[in-house]
Amino acid sequence: MTGRLSIIGLGPGSEAMITPQARDEVARAAHIFGYFPYVERLSPRPDQTVHGSDNREELDRARAALDLAARGEDVAMVSGGDPGVFAMAAAICETIDDGPDAYRAVELVVTPGVTAMLAVAAAAGAPLGHDFCAINLSDNLKPFAIIERRVAACAETGMAMAFYNPISRSRPWQLDAAFDTARLYLPKATPVIFGRAAGRPEQQIRTVPLSMAKGEMADMATCVIVGSVTTRIVERPGREPLIYTPRFWNADTGQAEPEAAQ
Amino acid sequence: MTGRLSIIGLGPGSEAMITPQARDEVARAAHIFGYFPYVERLSPRPDQTVHGSDNREELDRARAALDLAARGEDVAMVSGGDPGVFAMAAAICETIDDGPDAYRAVELVVTPGVTAMLAVAAAAGAPLGHDFCAINLSDNLKPFAIIERRVAACAETGMAMAFYNPISRSRPWQLDAAFDTARLYLPKATPVIFGRAAGRPEQQIRTVPLSMAKGEMADMATCVIVGSVTTRIVERPGREPLIYTPRFWNADTGQAEPEAAQ
Repeated sequence: MTGRLSIIGLGPGSEAMITPQARDEVARAAHIFGYFPYVERLSPRPDQTVHGSDNREELDRARAALDLAARGEDVAMVSGGDPGVFAMAAAICETIDDGPDAYRAVELVVTPGVTAMLAVAAAAGAPLGHDFCAINLSDNLKPFAIIERRVAACAETGMAMAFYNPISRSRPWQLDAAFDTARLYLPKATPVIFGRAAGRPEQQIRTVPLSMAKGEMADMATCVIVGSVTTRIVERPGREPLIYTPRFWNADTGQAEPEAAQ
Repeated sequence: MTGRLSIIGLGPGSEAMITPQARDEVARAAHIFGYFPYVERLSPRPDQTVHGSDNREELDRARAALDLAARGEDVAMVSGGDPGVFAMAAAICETIDDGPDAYRAVELVVTPGVTAMLAVAAAAGAPLGHDFCAINLSDNLKPFAIIERRVAACAETGMAMAFYNPISRSRPWQLDAAFDTARLYLPKATPVIFGRAAGRPEQQIRTVPLSMAKGEMADMATCVIVGSVTTRIVERPGREPLIYTPRFWNADTGQAEPEAAQ
């Protein structure tokens, strides 16, 4: 008998941002796997077994969950944000791809969630209102050179960028290097948003011009949004400014060529 | 007295994907604005006034909502998916930016939602598991040349792409042109996912190789995901294949150079 593995996005961290579907999927599982801080958000029933693990153990966690599901169990794997964006869905697909036939027989369900960049963007205004990309700044699984090529390509063609996993103790310089690359293509005043705990009571949203952006302004739990050449700031008396990227692209004012970087 | 304008993401269309926060925001409004199919998803109370409008009237809708909020009303603007991704949040920010001071005084709240590409990706596996971008294929507000530069830049640097608004009666050829551009940089077998009504009972997910992808496979309500050079298909006996993009980038196998397009 084959079981079921449900990969669930819990959203950015606030209870109010967990979809009913995600909640139902957690409720039906007998076993719940996930990185410690994500499983700690849940209130499991006594009949549910929680398997928390460290964030560097993604493939072990995927195998353990697939093994149980292949033996007929109803298993949940929880991620923060959306499970398909730099989270467990790809790790589980890789594990199935490389694994025994029994893994392919498991019923696999992925439940989407609100990913961090959407929560940070909402807190700031609409910085992702035009074409944009999402780049994982961790070079644990890819060379930093390809990250820099992507940052350059997006900045040059006028796309805003959301940086996930911008910095960690073992990756202290990558975010500064990404800002340096962006500075080759974007004006000094381009807004950079550092969003931490978006949507939660402890939310911190800080916006600085690209010329002032520094890696030390982020930590592991920060999602960084770098505007495009067209991203604007609307000052509002007595309120936080709005940061947004217009829907339109004017070939006159919106040229994202290096010469715009004055 | 200044009112409040709440811009709300209702998610991809299923009730089960609306966050509690979005539901609460709809409940507290006296006036609800939105494109007809979105406001029709709601069950307004008798004391709530619903202002549905056509999808080509975004700026009129934004102004009408801001005018009411500036007069002290509690106003909601609903979008499908996430309001910050090719939806009303940027249109409202533009209107505030260009509008009277009274618009700047309005309390503005943006509530994120599950955007279409995340629901389509979840239904297919994890095609957005590596760096990716989101591109609005409509050339109503930007020249098609910049869209093609972005498609080329993303395909060439190994990012998967989600195409929003891929086609309409007045924009019949743009999606085919985008596929043609992608074909210059990506292998013929690159998976292309056409996702319609993801997460709803009428969900349709169709995957074809890039060489076979045609604009006519999409309609206005489709979100199209084009894989990167590393995107893989896992065949599963008796189940739909999984489409995923590995988290890692191997400089040997994952070179997204034009010469890979064999």
